[in-house]
Amino acid sequence: MSIEKQGRQTWVFPAPPAILAGAAVAGPKEGGGALRADLDHIYPALSWDKKSFEQCEQAMQEKAASLALAKAGLQPQDIDIFFAGDLLNQITPSGFTARQLGAPFFGLFSACATAMEALSLAALCIASGAARHALALASSHTCTAERQFRYPNEYGSQKPPYAQHTATAAGAALVGEGQGAARICALTVGRVIDAQVCDPFQMGAAMAPAFADTVAAHLRELGLRPENYDLILSGDLGRDGCAIAGQLLARQGVDASATHFADCGLLLFQGADEVLAGGSGCGCAAAVGFGHILRRLASGELRRVLLCATGALLSPVANQQKESIPAICHAVALEGGNPHA
Amino acid sequence: MSIEKQGRQTWVFPAPPAILAGAAVAGPKEGGGALRADLDHIYPALSWDKKSFEQCEQAMQEKAASLALAKAGLQPQDIDIFFAGDLLNQITPSGFTARQLGAPFFGLFSACATAMEALSLAALCIASGAARHALALASSHTCTAERQFRYPNEYGSQKPPYAQHTATAAGAALVGEGQGAARICALTVGRVIDAQVCDPFQMGAAMAPAFADTVAAHLRELGLRPENYDLILSGDLGRDGCAIAGQLLARQGVDASATHFADCGLLLFQGADEVLAGGSGCGCAAAVGFGHILRRLASGELRRVLLCATGALLSPVANQQKESIPAICHAVALEGGNPHA
Repeated sequence: MSIEKQGRQTWVFPAPPAILAGAAVAGPKEGGGALRADLDHIYPALSWDKKSFEQCEQAMQEKAASLALAKAGLQPQDIDIFFAGDLLNQITPSGFTARQLGAPFFGLFSACATAMEALSLAALCIASGAARHALALASSHTCTAERQFRYPNEYGSQKPPYAQHTATAAGAALVGEGQGAARICALTVGRVIDAQVCDPFQMGAAMAPAFADTVAAHLRELGLRPENYDLILSGDLGRDGCAIAGQLLARQGVDASATHFADCGLLLFQGADEVLAGGSGCGCAAAVGFGHILRRLASGELRRVLLCATGALLSPVANQQKESIPAICHAVALEGGNPHA
Repeated sequence: MSIEKQGRQTWVFPAPPAILAGAAVAGPKEGGGALRADLDHIYPALSWDKKSFEQCEQAMQEKAASLALAKAGLQPQDIDIFFAGDLLNQITPSGFTARQLGAPFFGLFSACATAMEALSLAALCIASGAARHALALASSHTCTAERQFRYPNEYGSQKPPYAQHTATAAGAALVGEGQGAARICALTVGRVIDAQVCDPFQMGAAMAPAFADTVAAHLRELGLRPENYDLILSGDLGRDGCAIAGQLLARQGVDASATHFADCGLLLFQGADEVLAGGSGCGCAAAVGFGHILRRLASGELRRVLLCATGALLSPVANQQKESIPAICHAVALEGGNPHA
């Protein structure tokens, strides 16, 4: 297998690694939305038989990992390398899950873009022959994230209408050679883009420029047009971020009306109540990508998807120090599993 | 170029990528120690013309990156991919440095083992042909880290004698093909090992088992003995951690008396005052490895070094929730620059 660099930010896999299996788990609000049938496990509450929300998030990670392994007929010892991250300081759920799995582990952080960072590195390891099986995983939990980044949900503090709701969800993808639900054909690694947004509730506006930058780079460097994809999916720009992204894409000469654009944060909470401008969180792109999208690629309903996870590199400390919130977006191009279909 | 997996955790490069250039910068205490001559830049104080210690840490990263680039005669736009991490929540110094460099960026977190995670991934990208130049970078600052993980240094709170002093330092390594200061011959990716240590000052004891596990795996999987290396270097076990590691290695059948073992945390602060059990922090292994060690490999004073960065995955939140402090250790085998010397 091999890897070809094309342009500044894009890599292409002439013999694409496969997502052998994916799994998605989520909390009650997500489980009550339109993607319910694409979630492998739905937790009936935000906490269950664990002592903390943090332990619940770790349990979601372990569940997603074990489901993906089971679907692929593999064991933890078959994981050559494990890439994972989450939103919590020191990515503790990922560290504790790695302790459980016992696999060689590289911890990652790209905020809500982490799922695609993990998938990209897993694909690089498979395509280079460095690994036979690599596991990519990301998670978030509304109660752990909101407490850390803004206010504990229990305070009931009012949020502006452009705020997003952190998804309680985890998604895992097992990457390897051979046939699978989808093939990883190319990836575009994001640059850090800073729109000088300083409001920690304004994630969509902070991330939209990074999304537009990565999508434009991907299309330009591969000589593609939006219509070469059935779907271009942002991670979690939310309602307001999507509106801004559309304008920014137009400025970069990308005709967003030429294909279908959608947002994981909007998809995951379609039909759910009280999520303001939509969903966010590492688990959002992970669960929608490795659940809903993967199934549609496997079934042939979708043939080519550009999955662009967006991350706002928000730090409460930096925010208190009046720093802006830079953002990043990593894109992975997926094709339906059977190249001869 | 190619990559061969050997055993569960180890990868070997038949055509080893090179560290084309390295750079190390540090604060005043580190600059007053025995490694002074191996630091490319020494800051005379813990803060300078910046508004916060966090901005100082970011400035150290940018300085180390620009020095490494200058030594290699390269520009930021020559960086195909940038791997970086630090100890701060949301790895903000790394994110802001990535914004400055404008390169495709993957953020990492392995606590104080981050420098070797970055170097490992950089080596994988070069060996697979995915990149021509990859930059690996890590940093820490005593004032940003102590405030976040324990108490602000300004409180002057008493620390136990087994506590370590977080290094104010950053190190950068530019990895590519061809001749350089050193070649990256192999790497062993760590598993998360939990010794059930819960004391946030007891980092050496928390990390020693991970160090022993990775060193034993490396030697076993490559059929090597300690004496195959001139030096086996731990990241920052400190005085007490080193003593524990010696006992643990003996239990695993590794004869630590057969070669020279040393610790970056002890080396960096040799001759410096008031560092208790030694140094720690992402910047410790980064500055010692990409400064002191790299120069000795380039000069031929050292021929083969196993550089094992150790990270305690300490989280204040997890610690308050009575969770233990798991640890990880990533090892990279380096050889002197000229294979025909």
